[in-house]
Amino acid sequence: MNVAVIGLGLIGGSMARDLRAAGVASHVVGVDLNPVHRERALALGLVDAVAGLEEAAASADVLLVCIPVNAIESQLPHIMDLAEKAVVIDTGSTKSQICRAVREHPARERFVAAHPIAGTENSGPDAAIAGLFAGKVNIICERERSGGKAMEVARLVFDTLKMKTTFMDPDEHDKHVAYVSHLSHVSSFLLGQTVLDIEKDEKNIFTLAGSGFASTVRLAKSSPDMWAPIFEQNAGFLTRALEEYIGHLKRFHQCLVNRETTQMHDILSRANEIRRVLSGIELNQTKTNSQPANIEAEHKP
Amino acid sequence: MNVAVIGLGLIGGSMARDLRAAGVASHVVGVDLNPVHRERALALGLVDAVAGLEEAAASADVLLVCIPVNAIESQLPHIMDLAEKAVVIDTGSTKSQICRAVREHPARERFVAAHPIAGTENSGPDAAIAGLFAGKVNIICERERSGGKAMEVARLVFDTLKMKTTFMDPDEHDKHVAYVSHLSHVSSFLLGQTVLDIEKDEKNIFTLAGSGFASTVRLAKSSPDMWAPIFEQNAGFLTRALEEYIGHLKRFHQCLVNRETTQMHDILSRANEIRRVLSGIELNQTKTNSQPANIEAEHKP
Repeated sequence: MNVAVIGLGLIGGSMARDLRAAGVASHVVGVDLNPVHRERALALGLVDAVAGLEEAAASADVLLVCIPVNAIESQLPHIMDLAEKAVVIDTGSTKSQICRAVREHPARERFVAAHPIAGTENSGPDAAIAGLFAGKVNIICERERSGGKAMEVARLVFDTLKMKTTFMDPDEHDKHVAYVSHLSHVSSFLLGQTVLDIEKDEKNIFTLAGSGFASTVRLAKSSPDMWAPIFEQNAGFLTRALEEYIGHLKRFHQCLVNRETTQMHDILSRANEIRRVLSGIELNQTKTNSQPANIEAEHKP
Repeated sequence: MNVAVIGLGLIGGSMARDLRAAGVASHVVGVDLNPVHRERALALGLVDAVAGLEEAAASADVLLVCIPVNAIESQLPHIMDLAEKAVVIDTGSTKSQICRAVREHPARERFVAAHPIAGTENSGPDAAIAGLFAGKVNIICERERSGGKAMEVARLVFDTLKMKTTFMDPDEHDKHVAYVSHLSHVSSFLLGQTVLDIEKDEKNIFTLAGSGFASTVRLAKSSPDMWAPIFEQNAGFLTRALEEYIGHLKRFHQCLVNRETTQMHDILSRANEIRRVLSGIELNQTKTNSQPANIEAEHKP
């Protein structure tokens, strides 16, 4: 299968690497506006060749679109115009606006709207790693608008990456990721900002930072080029999630001002219930790591 | 050296374990109000024996006080009354109120106010692990009020734990940890709460949670018995840190509402500077792990 990867960053680079290693991609062509990314992707052996978008689209059986979500939204109709026979799969972290951008496209049945939920705080081709997706969840939206052949190709791609695929409505997807992914990123970015601010007056403040701090602000290292457009596209759901978070923080602040230790204790005890959730996540990842990928799982009947 | 550990949790249990293993503690007596903790500490081999506070205080050369900070503040004068010859070292995460509680105590010179900055989100004797403190930073406050013999014993304890000790003023300590530790915990607890709230209406929301979410809410698993008193004791500095954090979140929320992507991008790019800090933390920990502990390092001359 001839694969073209548009966007040679963490996601595109890691997909290219695994699909090549598994032999599923007989030839991988990389497309990237950044010449340094093209050069690094070749040097790292992520792709067999680099090319312009038109050339890559003409010869590929499958086009993986792994660019920032604002670029997916604006470029996807054009990419689908160019790809006369290829199946097109996007990997954006938002799905509503992207699905809407191509809903009426004549080749809609050759498109699969996907969100493979995997990543690290690093970016660019040098951040691409083998096995990034193994055991993780992949979401496909508007499955009913993708044709049988397109779904077959998507199954092959995500099975090869050892992902567990489920299906969701685009709005439902965007609402859920606003809470369990995008809000975490906002919280982390602004926690980083708060502590960097105080550092101007308080030298050596980071002498006292332990592993808890590192864990909480890790996501603040993520790429602004990727995340600013995600936040903007998911602004509807994310503003609501953020308002609820700010509301909780303000109530806690009030407890603190009034020295209401019992109430603070109650708040912390309720938050402790996250243990159940995190064990679930860990169990789930361990379990799916040791099982064959299963594209049949249905999130919502 | 006869060691008594008051509070057989994560910190006390881990200190007991390492001091016994290193042979520095010839005999370790554990004190805990909770009979289950006493039983587990014995079963896990963290301590040689358990005893009541009075008995333990009478025979020990050093008393390690590893209980929640509100209990340290209220019990420390009494513990120092009981310990007729022993050096007393506390390990609380706040230092101002604790130092104030014993500033005028007749045996003040036998007390060392310490904060070994190490931990995990787990608690109780079963959470005690070997090597928890190795390469981490330990802060001693009001060094000038501790006598020569007390500082020698503290040096032996923290050198054995392979910690890097520095010295700070109690208020300076509390201000710094408000930003680089306590705020992270508040942020994590309330992020957990926000997502647990929405879960009531949105089943299976956690299907979409990735490793980023797990990393950001890890601290929400921490013990409320330990953290509610820390937040209360450090309320002065923590309310300020929290106000600054909420201010940043509100400004970001406004950008989101107005779809000001460029401004959001600027905010995220500035927060990215945390990379420098985190590399510093990682480098520092790697470095100190491979070097002998150094209690001479001076944070502030």
